Amino acid sequence: MKPIGVFDSGVGGLTVARELFRQLPGEDIIYFGDIARVPYGIKSRETVIRFSIDNILFLLQHEVKLICVACNTVSSVALPVIRNHFKVPLVGVIAPAVREAVYATKNKRIGVIGTHGTIKSHTYETEIQHLDPEIKVFTRACPLFVPFVEEGWLKGNVVKDVAQTYLKPLKESRIDTLILGCTHYPLLKPVLQEVLGKSVVLIDSATQVAVEVKKILGTDGALNKKRRGKHKFYVSDNPGWFQELAGRFLGEKVKDVAKCIS
Amino acid sequence: MKPIGVFDSGVGGLTVARELFRQLPGEDIIYFGDIARVPYGIKSRETVIRFSIDNILFLLQHEVKLICVACNTVSSVALPVIRNHFKVPLVGVIAPAVREAVYATKNKRIGVIGTHGTIKSHTYETEIQHLDPEIKVFTRACPLFVPFVEEGWLKGNVVKDVAQTYLKPLKESRIDTLILGCTHYPLLKPVLQEVLGKSVVLIDSATQVAVEVKKILGTDGALNKKRRGKHKFYVSDNPGWFQELAGRFLGEKVKDVAKCIS
Repeated sequence: MKPIGVFDSGVGGLTVARELFRQLPGEDIIYFGDIARVPYGIKSRETVIRFSIDNILFLLQHEVKLICVACNTVSSVALPVIRNHFKVPLVGVIAPAVREAVYATKNKRIGVIGTHGTIKSHTYETEIQHLDPEIKVFTRACPLFVPFVEEGWLKGNVVKDVAQTYLKPLKESRIDTLILGCTHYPLLKPVLQEVLGKSVVLIDSATQVAVEVKKILGTDGALNKKRRGKHKFYVSDNPGWFQELAGRFLGEKVKDVAKCIS
Repeated sequence: MKPIGVFDSGVGGLTVARELFRQLPGEDIIYFGDIARVPYGIKSRETVIRFSIDNILFLLQHEVKLICVACNTVSSVALPVIRNHFKVPLVGVIAPAVREAVYATKNKRIGVIGTHGTIKSHTYETEIQHLDPEIKVFTRACPLFVPFVEEGWLKGNVVKDVAQTYLKPLKESRIDTLILGCTHYPLLKPVLQEVLGKSVVLIDSATQVAVEVKKILGTDGALNKKRRGKHKFYVSDNPGWFQELAGRFLGEKVKDVAKCIS
């Protein structure tokens, strides 16, 4: 049985990998983080597409049966363009979060936060309004959140002030649902919930992505039901730094990290 | 007469380019910013070395007569290794700042702030203590400063809180001189000075780097004395984003930006 491939620009995709590990414990999973070229969020569409293709080709060398694109920037900027280039199924993080948010909103006002690249792509608005044209979507790029998470500043006054600045216009737009459109943001859930108030539902895509992966593999008869799958991590740079951060994202220590050139 | 080459991981090196423009108005200058792979500060030594060599080879295609390494991470991590590989003179930003700081300190207690890569390399301590072994050096990585500068958050309570957190141990160590060991940091001078107090001297290397470049070219008889040199900018990604930020760093609009693959 072949492994599942997962890739991200860096460590954020581990929030998705964590759900895959939980929901698909029998699967072998290969994670690739492009640490040498992280972050993707400020980079142009063509560059994100070029890097994404590199990453997919790297995972294909490992004969993966499905690739999970565990990065919102790649999913929103590159996936619409390259989705049909490859035989292997590519599962992004946008559609699952959108479905959940459309289901959750009561007042039909959804907020979306993400990197510059994700927000500029307008993919979330397009996908949401494709499902329900009546929904109003309010978006905001929050580029400082990623460095805060990576430096481990997850609580305290400074990050709360930053969150207040970013979320003020969304709060004023009376959203009742917020999509965390970046795989780093789940680590900021407590501070985001505090700033927005308890009534706003926070959506991250990890759970639904894993559900979708399970469904596709089930349909293809490609689910691996052995007792315990192997998890292997590759990075294009700095395995030590990756390992340090991985614990924070996965809630468990990562042992098997290898450096490769993507 | 050949041009001078300048490179940086991104936009920060423009604070150095600005001084070169001012002190050497007759020179043609080619600036390269590796926007596709920025930032370098969290990346490993080998990766920074590999990227630096790519950038030098790109500038050599333009037949530059001298290369100014306008990036503290490259200057401290890669330059000691690759300095002697190339015929073209390579001028880094460490030595000029160190000379100025050693000259400025009265109590022989110097602080250094920079990226993770710069601080981990210990290059500043080594260079300072080479000039004066009695000087005590106190260092601190301030990784959040770069995203703050790039997002244009140069003043206000949030950035002041971050600065207070980072600078607290340096202040307690009673430094009287602080080296801004990252080319982004000069844009934060007002807030850094406010947090540290007026008595602490802030050193950035731009002025001294330009003095050194002028000296080397003068000795080689390679100074260009024509009335007004041309300035050309290359980036490996996102010329629009570069142009937007360049104004903030250079104090003037940048017109001629071309995209290339480094």
